[in-house]
Amino acid sequence: MNKAIFLHRSIRKYKSDPIPEDLLKNILEAGSRASTTGNMQVYSIIVTKDEDLKKQLWECHFKQNMVLEAPVVLTFCADFNRFSRWCRLRKAEPGYNNFLSFFTAAIDALLAAQNVCIEAEENGLGICYLGTTTYMANKIIDVLKLPQLVVPVTTVVLGYPDEQPGLTDRLPMAGIIHQNTYKDYTPHDIDMIYSLKESMGIYQQFVDEHQLESLAQVFTEKRYTKKDNEFFSEEFLKAIRRQGFLQ
Amino acid sequence: MNKAIFLHRSIRKYKSDPIPEDLLKNILEAGSRASTTGNMQVYSIIVTKDEDLKKQLWECHFKQNMVLEAPVVLTFCADFNRFSRWCRLRKAEPGYNNFLSFFTAAIDALLAAQNVCIEAEENGLGICYLGTTTYMANKIIDVLKLPQLVVPVTTVVLGYPDEQPGLTDRLPMAGIIHQNTYKDYTPHDIDMIYSLKESMGIYQQFVDEHQLESLAQVFTEKRYTKKDNEFFSEEFLKAIRRQGFLQ
Repeated sequence: MNKAIFLHRSIRKYKSDPIPEDLLKNILEAGSRASTTGNMQVYSIIVTKDEDLKKQLWECHFKQNMVLEAPVVLTFCADFNRFSRWCRLRKAEPGYNNFLSFFTAAIDALLAAQNVCIEAEENGLGICYLGTTTYMANKIIDVLKLPQLVVPVTTVVLGYPDEQPGLTDRLPMAGIIHQNTYKDYTPHDIDMIYSLKESMGIYQQFVDEHQLESLAQVFTEKRYTKKDNEFFSEEFLKAIRRQGFLQ
Repeated sequence: MNKAIFLHRSIRKYKSDPIPEDLLKNILEAGSRASTTGNMQVYSIIVTKDEDLKKQLWECHFKQNMVLEAPVVLTFCADFNRFSRWCRLRKAEPGYNNFLSFFTAAIDALLAAQNVCIEAEENGLGICYLGTTTYMANKIIDVLKLPQLVVPVTTVVLGYPDEQPGLTDRLPMAGIIHQNTYKDYTPHDIDMIYSLKESMGIYQQFVDEHQLESLAQVFTEKRYTKKDNEFFSEEFLKAIRRQGFLQ
């Protein structure tokens, strides 16, 4: 069992210690070894250490302090720009300004990101993914000066941990695995799958704090609301369209 | 340096040996330890071993033989169905029938997939990602009986390798990394980044076989054509819409 995988926890507090250049290089190279569609490597990784730029990214990421604290911010981008430029310089007409190509490139970027995280954690670093990347893609495009056919899909902050959180709960494996085909969930299945989570003190506290009736309501009414999801859907689609991946 | 990461190569020929149940369980559990948005775990993994179903998936995946040969086919799905059912059973109105939620769930599924692959490789198994999943999402939805708010985003075949391919070439790291912000590529940069690849015998052979002028033309005219990309973009968007993630 891979220790980094099984002991993974997101780190939200970082020491100010910088990451040695050799180590960072090695971690990024781990990213480049991930599977990639047709070996095209249609992604880019933006390594941001500059304080002023990190501050601008911090604004993009809802001012989560770990963006300022962690010495390195990695923005993983779906990138068909480099490949298309290569094509044009080689008398080949690229046809990658479409949604399939965006999604293909996003897969490449995300697999590379996970390799980077595992290699980082194996070397004593902590990581945290920032889901705010898709919400704020348009602003991130401006800050990082992303050209056409480049869209940020996730961000990872990287640094030496200044906290030691416990392992986070997960649903029972039977809740996420299906044998052969998808078996839809009965109300009984749902009760079984979510019972452990619902019984945990930390989640009951969320429910009480917000004076709600259930943990599910914390998600639908506070954390991931329909209104926000719809707003940020439009924003993210706008970014994909603006960068030339959707007509 | 993590050996599984740095020695990864896609395996396209498999022995018929089955994967021990305990090992498979452990590998899938590694997937569940990946970072997930808000700890919602909005993905499902379909484990297909049944011969008849594998044959149907083989048809979906452009009849690539590894789908039949490998003992296990894993289809990773963006899944907001389970979470939404839970919400409804807990007096919470889910708002996840939108594009942002699809993409959030796709990220969850892809990070889990990469954990699964690394854990599998550390245990002597081989893996191959199938990019055909997004092309043929509609047919896969039918075969695997995926309900609303479930979309397949990638597939991994899993088994004991029956080949030992060499490490695949990668672009120089300077080609995929940007410091602080994106620096767009000059023609000189592109020449530098692609020169090693273009000089390799295996790629020159592709160019000669197809009687083309450049390796880039192999991609644009044979492997990933504009016409196919546009056709499969519409198909994939249709699948996302059909499953309720896009209005």
